[in-house]
Amino acid sequence: MFKSAELPQTLSKQEFREMEPDLRIGLLQAQLQLVEERKFSVILVIAGLDGAGKNEAISRLHEWMDPRHLACNAYGEPTEEERLRPPFWRFWRDLPEKGEISIVVGSWYQLPMRRHATSKCSRREFELDLITINAFEEMLFNENVLILKFWFDLPVDEQKKRMKELAKRRRRVRHILEEWTQFMDDGTARETVEEMALRTSTAQAPWYVIPALDEEYRDIALGQIVSSALRYRLERPEPDSIAAPAIVAGMKRRSALDAVDLSAKLDKDDYEKELEHWQEELATLTDKKKFRDIALVAAFEGNDAAGKGGAIRRVTRPLDPRIYKVHPIAAPSDEEKARPYLWRFWRRIPRKGRIAIFDRSWYGRVLVERVEGFCTEADWMRAYNEINEFEQQLVEDDIVVAKFWLAISEEEQLARFKAREETAYKQFKITDEDWRNRLKWGAYEVAAGEMIDRTSTSAAPWTLVAAEDKRHARITVLKTLCKQLKKAL
Amino acid sequence: MFKSAELPQTLSKQEFREMEPDLRIGLLQAQLQLVEERKFSVILVIAGLDGAGKNEAISRLHEWMDPRHLACNAYGEPTEEERLRPPFWRFWRDLPEKGEISIVVGSWYQLPMRRHATSKCSRREFELDLITINAFEEMLFNENVLILKFWFDLPVDEQKKRMKELAKRRRRVRHILEEWTQFMDDGTARETVEEMALRTSTAQAPWYVIPALDEEYRDIALGQIVSSALRYRLERPEPDSIAAPAIVAGMKRRSALDAVDLSAKLDKDDYEKELEHWQEELATLTDKKKFRDIALVAAFEGNDAAGKGGAIRRVTRPLDPRIYKVHPIAAPSDEEKARPYLWRFWRRIPRKGRIAIFDRSWYGRVLVERVEGFCTEADWMRAYNEINEFEQQLVEDDIVVAKFWLAISEEEQLARFKAREETAYKQFKITDEDWRNRLKWGAYEVAAGEMIDRTSTSAAPWTLVAAEDKRHARITVLKTLCKQLKKAL
Repeated sequence: MFKSAELPQTLSKQEFREMEPDLRIGLLQAQLQLVEERKFSVILVIAGLDGAGKNEAISRLHEWMDPRHLACNAYGEPTEEERLRPPFWRFWRDLPEKGEISIVVGSWYQLPMRRHATSKCSRREFELDLITINAFEEMLFNENVLILKFWFDLPVDEQKKRMKELAKRRRRVRHILEEWTQFMDDGTARETVEEMALRTSTAQAPWYVIPALDEEYRDIALGQIVSSALRYRLERPEPDSIAAPAIVAGMKRRSALDAVDLSAKLDKDDYEKELEHWQEELATLTDKKKFRDIALVAAFEGNDAAGKGGAIRRVTRPLDPRIYKVHPIAAPSDEEKARPYLWRFWRRIPRKGRIAIFDRSWYGRVLVERVEGFCTEADWMRAYNEINEFEQQLVEDDIVVAKFWLAISEEEQLARFKAREETAYKQFKITDEDWRNRLKWGAYEVAAGEMIDRTSTSAAPWTLVAAEDKRHARITVLKTLCKQLKKAL
Repeated sequence: MFKSAELPQTLSKQEFREMEPDLRIGLLQAQLQLVEERKFSVILVIAGLDGAGKNEAISRLHEWMDPRHLACNAYGEPTEEERLRPPFWRFWRDLPEKGEISIVVGSWYQLPMRRHATSKCSRREFELDLITINAFEEMLFNENVLILKFWFDLPVDEQKKRMKELAKRRRRVRHILEEWTQFMDDGTARETVEEMALRTSTAQAPWYVIPALDEEYRDIALGQIVSSALRYRLERPEPDSIAAPAIVAGMKRRSALDAVDLSAKLDKDDYEKELEHWQEELATLTDKKKFRDIALVAAFEGNDAAGKGGAIRRVTRPLDPRIYKVHPIAAPSDEEKARPYLWRFWRRIPRKGRIAIFDRSWYGRVLVERVEGFCTEADWMRAYNEINEFEQQLVEDDIVVAKFWLAISEEEQLARFKAREETAYKQFKITDEDWRNRLKWGAYEVAAGEMIDRTSTSAAPWTLVAAEDKRHARITVLKTLCKQLKKAL
């Protein structure tokens, strides 16, 4: 998850200089109002990879805001006084008064994550720690504390580079750094972070990922989130159902989608060969006796006209028609509207040995419903966790969950729309609504990017498919399905 | 916990006949409005001990309400269709439409509880199951489903008796019954139920305990809760922060306090002997080297003039003055008011080897603050879980938590108030506020009863102390403290 943080997000010095003055004024004004009204207090949890510049970002906040009402509470190894009391005692002791902001470094996440990372506790013990944390943060939210949590992230290679440099300069901390580096090399490390972020990113205390490769980008991102979350909360006399909006406007963030290489292509001959190969493979896999103990759920999302239908037909062609069903998802029926959102998908969950293919899916909640305002902000914000929980239940029941995002460029979409209008037998595929949706391209991009960040779990990862070339897209889909099935069988 | 359900709660046939007509009208009217408006759906989870008359109560609901909009979904061993899908699939399949009521028997609690009771999963796996349940119910709440959960309870002996009778009549189910009886005999059984109820009784989906000894009482209690919760929800266009009020007026419920035998007495000679013995014991225990690895937190609550101060002085007398501190809890300071409610208690948590005695405590939240309206209903409802979580953290850190409720009768309080007014050096102890609180005797009784039901955990149980006779009360307190300490050392 949080794939976007792995991308190089940057801001030029010039852009930084242009954005800084307004940001500072906004931050200061919000803080002033907070101090005068004393209606709530603020906790900023700063966590993330070593070498990501957490301290530098904290200094910047002190520079930008009134430091008299900004305390930094850093926790390392517990002192004697602290060891003689329950683990949360030290965090309770330093809770800020209303009107004050506390920056927390080495927070209540530190110990559980370290224990888990160094295998001193099981995954289940780790999850229990996370329950305690959620109860704590929920209580804080209800008691008028605004909690914002920041995870400073770096691309893996960059982080390793920085850690090596750090180790050279600071001999004393070398063993800690080595422990950590080893931890990050280990495949389970990212999973620890993911588990932590998914389980504890609640509407009451959300995690924000700060891409920290570029320091200008990093600090502006942090400042903007703090500023807009403060203003959001200041406008509300009582806490809302959410602490702050999930997405902060004002700065372009490269999403995982931007990193898709749309130029990927496959020529016709290669395509025919590969198509035959992977379709045969898919038929063989789903024909195995062991397939009767598992099931497959495949969800297709993507830009309009990205070729979802064509890709799905390439998948179903080699399959025994008795074992699969394609579910096109349009507007919900009356029966479905009268029940919780996910009901329409639960009722279509295949039994063992079967395949359900969704042409558009439960992700509509955080895509079209979000963009068109068919549900409230609180609804789609809680949907990320609900969806992760839903898919988790499928995976735990030995159902393979495959999710495809078919991406095309805005220009390619225009070309395909026009082609559809000009071809008689394709006209049914293009409606006024498609043209209307196209006008909201930017909003859909943001929604899709955040969706991929927040729901690409190790249990049910997204596959981003470059679909500018249909042949390439179809083969990618078939290949991925075969790989996922093979792993499960 | 739920001590009150262990008491004989009864209603005469005459009382039942008098209450039934109004209750039926109320239920029907509420259901009619629900069906017409179709704004939300209702799930009634019916769980509890076998032999407690769950089926009889469900029939009664069908008799009282319009059965065309009332479905009963009972789940036993999963069918083949169900076994081939994730465990929650069958519950999703049967979710009621808006306007409909679904009675769920053998709900999502059945399997986790059975697995845990028969030691087929660890306590931690059980807790993970409970997380999944909480996520499911929270989602339902947010999706406009009103969930009410009922636990049908019986005094232990009565349940055994009924199980034996059942086993005689129904040979086929004998092995299930034996498994269950064994489970209930085992000490961990009640703990399983407690853990389940504490972790999953949320403001969004609360548990209600139905004392099921007497069938008239049982059915009226169930009907009244359903009726008043329906009306509560019908008055709100959007779900509130709570599903329904915790307590339902209209019927006197015997609380754990009613069962305290206030006539308990100790004569002077015995008292002197016991006092000396237990004070010496307490001094010895707190003097042990191992005491430096633990700590003691003792909370004293009770009716005004019940003798908390006197009891506390008997506890502190034999103690080394350097190791204990008595904290009288009155109105919070400005500093404390500006922070989350439990902060003022966390800051007073003793370090290892020390003792903190609270003369009134964090339970003020669910007593005086509740009764006087100093906090909202949602605030004190979430406080039960917050307090349980708080005490859990203390216990896990090897702190002994002792909680005393000193109970006197209304008459005895009056006598003591008068005596205080008449004795010059005791006049400072009685204020106008005491007289005002006395007028709310009934409200405080209800609050105290519910507090004991919802916070008497196996980790931190309440000790109910008959304090009509001061000597008896003081010895009970000292004895209990010594026993709890001895167990921990």
